[in-house]
Amino acid sequence: MQHEAYMMEALELAKEAAMEGEVPVGCVVVVGDAVVGRGRNRREESKNALAHAEVEAIDEACRALGGWRLSGARLYVTLEPCPMCAGAIINARIPKVYFGARDPKAGACGSVLNLFEEGFNHRPELVGGILEAECADLLTGFFRGLRKSEN
Amino acid sequence: MQHEAYMMEALELAKEAAMEGEVPVGCVVVVGDAVVGRGRNRREESKNALAHAEVEAIDEACRALGGWRLSGARLYVTLEPCPMCAGAIINARIPKVYFGARDPKAGACGSVLNLFEEGFNHRPELVGGILEAECADLLTGFFRGLRKSEN
Repeated sequence: MQHEAYMMEALELAKEAAMEGEVPVGCVVVVGDAVVGRGRNRREESKNALAHAEVEAIDEACRALGGWRLSGARLYVTLEPCPMCAGAIINARIPKVYFGARDPKAGACGSVLNLFEEGFNHRPELVGGILEAECADLLTGFFRGLRKSEN
Repeated sequence: MQHEAYMMEALELAKEAAMEGEVPVGCVVVVGDAVVGRGRNRREESKNALAHAEVEAIDEACRALGGWRLSGARLYVTLEPCPMCAGAIINARIPKVYFGARDPKAGACGSVLNLFEEGFNHRPELVGGILEAECADLLTGFFRGLRKSEN
């Protein structure tokens, strides 16, 4: 139940992204029971390839905690992290990662590969499928809307 | 020769990092013959796990070019990119990557794995070993200095 409550917060951020025309992905970083970092996809708005939800949330968490090691944190994200974001999670030493929907094309936490099991110096614990249907439906609805608006 | 000239610029940025007590890694992003992004490692200064040389250089290049697709760019970095940075290169659609020294522990461009050959939707061309000795010596000297100062 607790994990689902944090994933709900990430989902709210994903919905905010969708409202702004961004692929709806949201993320929160949590220490104990406090959210210390929030992020959503804003690649189009910021015209920046780095502007994924996880990067924004990790950046905010590092600022909040005053250090680059987030070794007491948990990360919740609505979509399976891509290689950049999985790598950022490794670099920040985040020990626990929870994600919602799987990403068969770009997922680096079990879909295309699992970057956490490739021999790098940090191996986060990984749980996928938290509120999976809600996270996936938000993405599916967004892309359906995009296709309609292109017709 | 041309590639070595850009790697020299990246090496200058790496030396700047070393002067500030950061692991010496530098990076430039180039379009045609113009450097459009520069970055160096500043993880300790910024207390941020994301503050790698490549991330800073890609961020600057996206701002300079006004878009997240760097599909006409080349990236030069003194050390083999980690998974986060290799993933950022994929996300920014950078087609050509040149690196100096190899990173046997964290390299995601051939050492631990090659992220560009794992089936993701963008496969940059990759050349390692540009000014390899200079890039590696800078790192070796830095860590030797660190060990001395710890004794």
